Amino acid sequence: MEKIIIPQNETDALFNKLTLQGEKRGYFLNPNTNIAKSLCEALLKNEKRYGHQVCPCRLSAGSREADLDVICPCDYRDPDLLKYGVCYCGLYASKKIFTEKTPTKPIPERRPNKETRLLNKQKYMEEQNQPKDINNLSQPVWRCQVCGYIAARPEAPEICPICGATHDRFEKFI
Amino acid sequence: MEKIIIPQNETDALFNKLTLQGEKRGYFLNPNTNIAKSLCEALLKNEKRYGHQVCPCRLSAGSREADLDVICPCDYRDPDLLKYGVCYCGLYASKKIFTEKTPTKPIPERRPNKETRLLNKQKYMEEQNQPKDINNLSQPVWRCQVCGYIAARPEAPEICPICGATHDRFEKFI
Amino acid sequence: MEKIIIPQNETDALFNKLTLQGEKRGYFLNPNTNIAKSLCEALLKNEKRYGHQVCPCRLSAGSREADLDVICPCDYRDPDLLKYGVCYCGLYASKKIFTEKTPTKPIPERRPNKETRLLNKQKYMEEQNQPKDINNLSQPVWRCQVCGYIAARPEAPEICPICGATHDRFEKFI
Repeated sequence: MEKIIIPQNETDALFNKLTLQGEKRGYFLNPNTNIAKSLCEALLKNEKRYGHQVCPCRLSAGSREADLDVICPCDYRDPDLLKYGVCYCGLYASKKIFTEKTPTKPIPERRPNKETRLLNKQKYMEEQNQPKDINNLSQPVWRCQVCGYIAARPEAPEICPICGATHDRFEKFI
Repeated sequence: MEKIIIPQNETDALFNKLTLQGEKRGYFLNPNTNIAKSLCEALLKNEKRYGHQVCPCRLSAGSREADLDVICPCDYRDPDLLKYGVCYCGLYASKKIFTEKTPTKPIPERRPNKETRLLNKQKYMEEQNQPKDINNLSQPVWRCQVCGYIAARPEAPEICPICGATHDRFEKFI
Repeated sequence: MEKIIIPQNETDALFNKLTLQGEKRGYFLNPNTNIAKSLCEALLKNEKRYGHQVCPCRLSAGSREADLDVICPCDYRDPDLLKYGVCYCGLYASKKIFTEKTPTKPIPERRPNKETRLLNKQKYMEEQNQPKDINNLSQPVWRCQVCGYIAARPEAPEICPICGATHDRFEKFI
């Protein structure tokens, strides 16, 4: 594979952009700046290589469509942040880990294998033709009791992106 | 009609405010700054004239209630951004058009005529008294697969306002 | 009770943080800076005393779980802002009151008493085991007609936290 060199200032710029965006959106980078920056560099390499910032810790399938769930931030970041305090790569960390500067450890891969992903997609497409049932939605809906923000995801977010309320201010809404 | 003069610094202030808000919210102004600023000026004129920033490219009906759907940003901006890359006035542009500095072109009017709007409103009021049916909501609900944000609108947003994920990371949820 | 001293710079820092967050999220502090700062100081005292920023105008029950609905911002802020233009403490004010620098007045307590809160919680837990009914959700769902943001709360927000649209641009969605 051709060697790709990313200038330090481009890596720093992505690191700064993600840090700032995170502050606004309730996300935090790895407290170890070296780890976070080397992952930013890897994202920029992947962007040059594949055209999109695919997760540095997974193998690109070569097409945007097939990589969609692992374009950073990946579909698995938020559940991993909540369960392990860190995403699969370790680029993102929970507020607790970020604040306490806890060293991060590897976590298990949550992404289903290719066959399961294809089956899930097929199942999703079939369900689109079925009537929806409020008691059988694909994800539970969580409600922030402070501001009424609702999000459909396996668990409530760590921090409400609208009002900043903590995880324990959410209730299951649907 | 009385001539209204808007000082340049007021126009610039609105332009800067909308630019900054857009950065936070995933919206972009026309890449042609002259066009964007002249529309900002027109919005400020309308505010002095009618008391609210009614769309410069539509006729005010004179009351806030009758103008509500075309107070900027109008109810038609987001679907137009997605379909044409630009809103009816050309004040807002898609990220692609903004980034590539594509010259913008006029687009068709999406706003229903007065009679249809009145009928729609009447239909909406009647439906409020009917039981809701999850398979017959007024808008589909789109879900960001990265952060779980859900929005009820004809199409998913160009950029997730919560986590910044792209349009193709959304799925139909309801 | 032990006397707790909060250094002025810590109070100022919280005041500035809440002001900035509010700007991004569509919330405003009391236009009387003295009132707002003394409430910030009281929040910091409560944080030292109880471990969380419990509302300065209510009595802490001593545990985070029992105080959850009155950790600032409390569950009652948003409905009070909409009805009275101010929260129970007067830390938060509506945009109108903030902009016009209206002096704020005491408002009635909206928080149910302890017994009712326990009954509500019990009812909520029981409902979690029942099938959901779209016509009987715990809160109505409001939809911003500009951007499609949906929130589940007694009334629509004063300002859409996603696109900045005003209260009257929301419609009842569910």
